[in-house]
Amino acid sequence: MSLQNFISKAISPWMKNEGPDSDIVLSSRIRLARNIEEIEFPIIASKEKLENIIEIVKDKFSKHTHRKFGELELLKMDDMKPNEKRVLVEKHLISPNLSDESKAGAVLLSEDESLSIMVNEEDHFRIQILLSGFQLDQGLNYANEIDDWMEEKVDFAFDQKRGYLTSCPTNVGTGLRASVMMHLPALVITRQMNRILPAINQLGLVVRGIYGEGSEALGNLFQISNQTTLGKSEEDIVDDLRSVVVQLIQQERTARETLLQQSKLQMEDRVYRSYGILSYSRTMESKEATQRLSDVRLGIDLGLITDLSGSILNELMILTQPGFLQQYAGEILSSEQRDQRRATLIRERLKLENNA
Amino acid sequence: MSLQNFISKAISPWMKNEGPDSDIVLSSRIRLARNIEEIEFPIIASKEKLENIIEIVKDKFSKHTHRKFGELELLKMDDMKPNEKRVLVEKHLISPNLSDESKAGAVLLSEDESLSIMVNEEDHFRIQILLSGFQLDQGLNYANEIDDWMEEKVDFAFDQKRGYLTSCPTNVGTGLRASVMMHLPALVITRQMNRILPAINQLGLVVRGIYGEGSEALGNLFQISNQTTLGKSEEDIVDDLRSVVVQLIQQERTARETLLQQSKLQMEDRVYRSYGILSYSRTMESKEATQRLSDVRLGIDLGLITDLSGSILNELMILTQPGFLQQYAGEILSSEQRDQRRATLIRERLKLENNA
Repeated sequence: MSLQNFISKAISPWMKNEGPDSDIVLSSRIRLARNIEEIEFPIIASKEKLENIIEIVKDKFSKHTHRKFGELELLKMDDMKPNEKRVLVEKHLISPNLSDESKAGAVLLSEDESLSIMVNEEDHFRIQILLSGFQLDQGLNYANEIDDWMEEKVDFAFDQKRGYLTSCPTNVGTGLRASVMMHLPALVITRQMNRILPAINQLGLVVRGIYGEGSEALGNLFQISNQTTLGKSEEDIVDDLRSVVVQLIQQERTARETLLQQSKLQMEDRVYRSYGILSYSRTMESKEATQRLSDVRLGIDLGLITDLSGSILNELMILTQPGFLQQYAGEILSSEQRDQRRATLIRERLKLENNA
Repeated sequence: MSLQNFISKAISPWMKNEGPDSDIVLSSRIRLARNIEEIEFPIIASKEKLENIIEIVKDKFSKHTHRKFGELELLKMDDMKPNEKRVLVEKHLISPNLSDESKAGAVLLSEDESLSIMVNEEDHFRIQILLSGFQLDQGLNYANEIDDWMEEKVDFAFDQKRGYLTSCPTNVGTGLRASVMMHLPALVITRQMNRILPAINQLGLVVRGIYGEGSEALGNLFQISNQTTLGKSEEDIVDDLRSVVVQLIQQERTARETLLQQSKLQMEDRVYRSYGILSYSRTMESKEATQRLSDVRLGIDLGLITDLSGSILNELMILTQPGFLQQYAGEILSSEQRDQRRATLIRERLKLENNA
């Protein structure tokens, strides 16, 4: 497969850098945890019972066309090769937990991948809406729509006092997790992030790296989400997150202006050196790639680099993950081979861009 | 002036990377120290006496055409701007000492700059032949020819027992210093240089960096020369140096083969990263430029980089020195401005190469 072809197949719309404020907010995500009434949570349910849920999904959801999201494809974890699952994890469409741990896990995917419903992860259902840019409200609308659509056909475990019941107590109530992925290089370079992070935590929000809990904030990418799901309405949870994100966007923009005014040459040198290394290197670890892609993306956003489109960070961040590299190579690769393929893929991708 | 024009004017033939073994030996130099009989050495002579020597030079040498070197141009230090002198130092045509310290210093230059005769440096005359590649014998032949040509017209201070008399006792005898500039990156990368250097010193040779005594061996460039000038014939001195250089060439070639066999990918990555940084950076200190140019040159010599000619290291090593940068800019620059101009000049030079 040609690289161009591979990319056009691999890229989901949310990676395309098209949403509002997409110079800073890469993506917005809404997730609702739901369980079917009177069936045990996946942690204690037998494999048979969980397979029964998949039958319900087949019957009630995957065979019907949804008004907005079209036909949903059902993928069972047992039917997939390890690397196919890995690619879905890297695209943020399923969790590592569903891929590796679930007894009868599956996922329902819309064709544009903006909707994914994990089946038999920690809960029976995890409805996820993933959109490009800063679109939390839109995400919540879509998630509610899917929630209603599903509730027409199955009864969800619900308690009048507590709200939706979930496997883990931290999700009880709304079952909602709202999150945004933000690119905040100027706040990192100007050393403001260390001061900002504790303040965000105090507001009841959680900051993580790009691959969820416990992952490092590589490439100046920060995933910010709500911690509380109980005692607040869905709208209030999203509002609280949104107001913090709006402030962060403002702070990042101010920091970028400061960098341009006070150290333009140093910034230009930094982003172009990373551009040069990405264009020429022959082997590169994932961590370095992420950092250098962040530099180049900042250079684009600052108007210092003009011959590249802003979506390359989003794209290449995903395409240079191990699963994707192996999918493109058509074989399982050692760590050294991946580093080499990663450098090659980035070089070829940048060349495509320069030829365009 | 266009860069192409500037370069073609600035480059001396010895930088062109054309001589024998020029993949490793950048240049060969022969220097003879001579003094006129019955005139005090420059250190103690009055300015009047030294000006008298310049008159002798004008009368006897600069007005006559030499069979091999053509017309010689006389440049007096007092008539030159500081940056003009700096450029001559950077081209290795005069010493910093002549530029800054001499009372009535001057230099006689052949048009192709392979011959320079410093006047009133430490000695009345310092005859220098500077050739591309490994050409010590040819250099000695030329130097002897100039020595004879001068001796036809003036009497040199000579002692039957000691040989030629010079200002510093270390030059008494032949007055000869033979040296080669070698590029030995593979011996440095494979950590053999630390073992080799003391062995070379034990053979009575001296190893220095590119800008003479006390200068660091930047860019894996080593200047190797004889220490002794007394008690051996000119031919023996050159023979001893040559045999060491032949061994070093062999060792460097072996080390390069080893690198290619054992760590080709790492070498490719290293030389291409340096190529990328040189092609993209916006500010660069002299030290880094020298090191990265050394990497790129090694890449060319190993056949890993094929779209650049080998002479760029030689050229750019010189063209990115402060004097040249200021000459090209047409003004005196601060250190920060030079770093910026250096990066720009390298980028433009590499672009010229890629367009060619």
